[in-house]
Amino acid sequence: MTTSPKRFAIGVDFGTNSVRALIVDVTDGSEVAAHVSEYPSGEAGVLLSPKDPNLARQNPADYIKGFYSSVKRAVAAAKRKRGFRVEHVVGIGIDSTGSTPIPVDRDGTPLALHAAFQRELAAHAWLWKDHTAHAEAAEITAKAADHRDRYLANCGGVYSSEWYWSKILHCKRSAPKVFAAAYSWVELADFIPAFITGHTDPHRLARGICAAGHKAMYHEDWGGLPSERFLASLDPDLPVLRRRYAERAVPADRKAGELNAEVARKVGLPAGVAVAVGAFDAHMGAVGAGIKPGTLVKIIGTSTCDMMVAPMDEPLPDIPGLCGIVPDSVIPGMYGIEAGQSAVGDIFNWFASQLGPQQFTAKGDPHTNLSRAAEKIRPGASGLLALDWNNGNRTILVDPRLTGLLVGQTLSTSAPEVYRALVEATAFGALTIINRLDEYGVPVKDVVNCGGIAEKNPFVMQIYADVCNRSMKISHSAQTCALGAAIFGAVAGGVYRSVESAQRKMVRPPRRVYRPRKAAAGVYSELYGLYKQLHDTFGRADHAQALGHVMKSLIAIRDRTQKG
Amino acid sequence: MTTSPKRFAIGVDFGTNSVRALIVDVTDGSEVAAHVSEYPSGEAGVLLSPKDPNLARQNPADYIKGFYSSVKRAVAAAKRKRGFRVEHVVGIGIDSTGSTPIPVDRDGTPLALHAAFQRELAAHAWLWKDHTAHAEAAEITAKAADHRDRYLANCGGVYSSEWYWSKILHCKRSAPKVFAAAYSWVELADFIPAFITGHTDPHRLARGICAAGHKAMYHEDWGGLPSERFLASLDPDLPVLRRRYAERAVPADRKAGELNAEVARKVGLPAGVAVAVGAFDAHMGAVGAGIKPGTLVKIIGTSTCDMMVAPMDEPLPDIPGLCGIVPDSVIPGMYGIEAGQSAVGDIFNWFASQLGPQQFTAKGDPHTNLSRAAEKIRPGASGLLALDWNNGNRTILVDPRLTGLLVGQTLSTSAPEVYRALVEATAFGALTIINRLDEYGVPVKDVVNCGGIAEKNPFVMQIYADVCNRSMKISHSAQTCALGAAIFGAVAGGVYRSVESAQRKMVRPPRRVYRPRKAAAGVYSELYGLYKQLHDTFGRADHAQALGHVMKSLIAIRDRTQKG
Repeated sequence: MTTSPKRFAIGVDFGTNSVRALIVDVTDGSEVAAHVSEYPSGEAGVLLSPKDPNLARQNPADYIKGFYSSVKRAVAAAKRKRGFRVEHVVGIGIDSTGSTPIPVDRDGTPLALHAAFQRELAAHAWLWKDHTAHAEAAEITAKAADHRDRYLANCGGVYSSEWYWSKILHCKRSAPKVFAAAYSWVELADFIPAFITGHTDPHRLARGICAAGHKAMYHEDWGGLPSERFLASLDPDLPVLRRRYAERAVPADRKAGELNAEVARKVGLPAGVAVAVGAFDAHMGAVGAGIKPGTLVKIIGTSTCDMMVAPMDEPLPDIPGLCGIVPDSVIPGMYGIEAGQSAVGDIFNWFASQLGPQQFTAKGDPHTNLSRAAEKIRPGASGLLALDWNNGNRTILVDPRLTGLLVGQTLSTSAPEVYRALVEATAFGALTIINRLDEYGVPVKDVVNCGGIAEKNPFVMQIYADVCNRSMKISHSAQTCALGAAIFGAVAGGVYRSVESAQRKMVRPPRRVYRPRKAAAGVYSELYGLYKQLHDTFGRADHAQALGHVMKSLIAIRDRTQKG
Repeated sequence: MTTSPKRFAIGVDFGTNSVRALIVDVTDGSEVAAHVSEYPSGEAGVLLSPKDPNLARQNPADYIKGFYSSVKRAVAAAKRKRGFRVEHVVGIGIDSTGSTPIPVDRDGTPLALHAAFQRELAAHAWLWKDHTAHAEAAEITAKAADHRDRYLANCGGVYSSEWYWSKILHCKRSAPKVFAAAYSWVELADFIPAFITGHTDPHRLARGICAAGHKAMYHEDWGGLPSERFLASLDPDLPVLRRRYAERAVPADRKAGELNAEVARKVGLPAGVAVAVGAFDAHMGAVGAGIKPGTLVKIIGTSTCDMMVAPMDEPLPDIPGLCGIVPDSVIPGMYGIEAGQSAVGDIFNWFASQLGPQQFTAKGDPHTNLSRAAEKIRPGASGLLALDWNNGNRTILVDPRLTGLLVGQTLSTSAPEVYRALVEATAFGALTIINRLDEYGVPVKDVVNCGGIAEKNPFVMQIYADVCNRSMKISHSAQTCALGAAIFGAVAGGVYRSVESAQRKMVRPPRRVYRPRKAAAGVYSELYGLYKQLHDTFGRADHAQALGHVMKSLIAIRDRTQKG
């Protein structure tokens, strides 16, 4: 009996603090080997400025080092496994954070790698969470709103300070020398495939549709990037950048090229392995979690990214408040739809670190301690209700200048009660996104969750199931981003004809399912009604509402649920 | 050269946890001796029930023991002072918490002193902060609203669960045997003068106008207590209690009687010393702080009591939301006006104990630590705004079923910022009371503060001055309640012809004055505008309001004030 040799794909996931290489068997998605390399620069990989808390940059040299070290060690580990041979690696997929644009020279080399710019923060990679460009974002939003091409209709009508053009424009204004030296700006997700295939010419390197469509206002309806005239209205030096960009952006199931000999040698792989076009971590993560029409994938960590896909047979309506609707961006041939909550785990971390009393923080993990106590509180029994806006609201209000709110405190309100109310608030935020999708013709039939909180926090996930009154599935793989990247590697390498057929083999059924509990769901449905009233009154510009019943209703629910 | 011998009055102040006896020189109010006795029963003097957090009772035996021990020791201490002789004690005044009604037998002996009722919580004193009778309070409010005599016009239109009839009615319903055994119900402030003078017959013992008018709906306009028909509409067994009550309630400058020989012997005083009619601690405290027309006296502790007096030359309008307007209740011959905040220090205590992180609570006094950090934050710079309703709102909304609210939290909001926002919220609540008095023709020209927080917390008092944009005076005496009681003792003893003339001699100028700072007052005036919008939208039944600007305005103020 002979069996055909196994084949393998490698997914390389560039996170905020580290890069992870994952080697999987393409027949069933099983994990053969993995390695994580931390970025050496800055604070856990992030370059900060004591002068500006909005600033977050990264050293492009860390990306290169990180690729070499993670892939090399993962390959070495795989080699010790039975049945693995480097010759059977068929493709490499890359995902990264974003929008994380890097200023590069004429050859596509990051400016920061030149000695002259090494100490210049503006010459480094502008990490996704850099918010220095908030003024520019507001300016782009205003200008785009007036434009006949409605550039922002697909991204909720608001351009973010985290995105490509905001950052470039802010560089022009705050670091004009760097701007002048930058021949082009390349997203990290595109830079890595370009670098490892050797196709780094800014004019021709593969620009992924994911980054282009979601962050750079690229759309075929208006011929790619926004018009030169529009860019010129922002700054006369922007239009030239449009000419230093690929004519067409491409989906991530295409080959960016083949592994260049020198890079191959450094990581212990043969040259010529197919390298897929890059995409954002969340989008490849969604693929690794099994996204398909009707399935919402939520990546829940410090913030969330919520993704759906929808067939392109008929055009989608503009869905107000969504972060982006981009053809081909998640699964080629479908609309990729992105939403998100600007803080989830970050809110829990804030509470535990700033307001967690000693009895919960002195010994052990504060979150475990607070969760354990909060888990015993019945839904509604604290009388508390919160808005989850400590870091603004991404979906559906698209407003970074919103803040948190807590109502219902008495003289005996406890820290676990507040903690639970904050968890519930993020669940209400999640439900608001689901409802918005449902209302605009993108029905959510299934929810698959991944990310740190989904993996590790049954307390939070049960509340999500109860609040949303839907089963919350947890994705099988704990490394959906890297797995998703490997899936694109397998497709680019020709093993599968489409991302969907690769998913059918490589994505396994959920590891765990949290089912809604009827009684809890009933109480939460009442609380959500109140949440929505606060949401609309505080979140919308001119939504007048009588709120005199809110505290009374919370007390009535509390009194009823305490008795149980 | 001969000088007339000094004369002395004794004030005995029955607080929530202890009783204080203070002996003062009637010529200048100087303190000769004092002694505080803790109540031995329950938790710091309060009998609690694990089954009901609303329940708070006291053992009447503690009051008797407390009187003996505190007066006896104060007298003994005074005897060691030069110039003091027990024969020169001219009068005793009594103040207490309230409404704290005690069920008594036919002779005026508290039921709880009988062996058969010793273990029955309902047979003990129903401490002011007992809230078991909230349903009965709502019922009385509803019935009184329909009544032609408008029994509640003088107390803001809402009858409280803390008050006399609510508690009696709740006893009837929850402990009918105790109700049946109770011949009458006597306020603590009336019980002590009755007990120490020996005039305990419920029909004839002196019922002070202060307790009767503020808590039992007594008013001469309708012939005293509410009509039997009205009481019968609440419960057929209530009307008889009206017949077991003095025909007329009396002000506290009158004599309740003279010190009975047995009591006198136990405390080391001569028999026959004049004993004044009792009144509530806050009201006598206001007198001790120098209340007069135009002067608001605030007693700031766990909660506040805010008092004014107004001449009776012309009738006052109904002032909506005030706790009570009662002729003769504070200073005989004037209207006594009472308002209050249901939690002030209690909110700070709640925050420090439930949400104070380790760095502020581990070492030293958490309030000192939090205040020290909070003091450094500029007004407006936290971007936070709170409502001070963790224990409901007494004035001007008169609604115990309101709760706390905090808005403006970000991911970097700190504990001292929240602490400061809570202090500011109580100051906004204080300003709301001042504005209400001003608007209804009781101009506040001067504010004198006393109580624990006024005495000890410059951080809080400076914020009050800035928020109210008025000077905040601190009363000279730290024991204004006991001093006030001694003033009434001096008047009852015939040393002075009126409370006002006694005040002129016995109340000294303020110990300290906090003056408003212009810049802070400007910022607080903006924040108060936002507070008032939240106050009205969450506190009033049908006040619809757009609040979409609130978070934005707080951010704008924050950004401006952080820069300084």
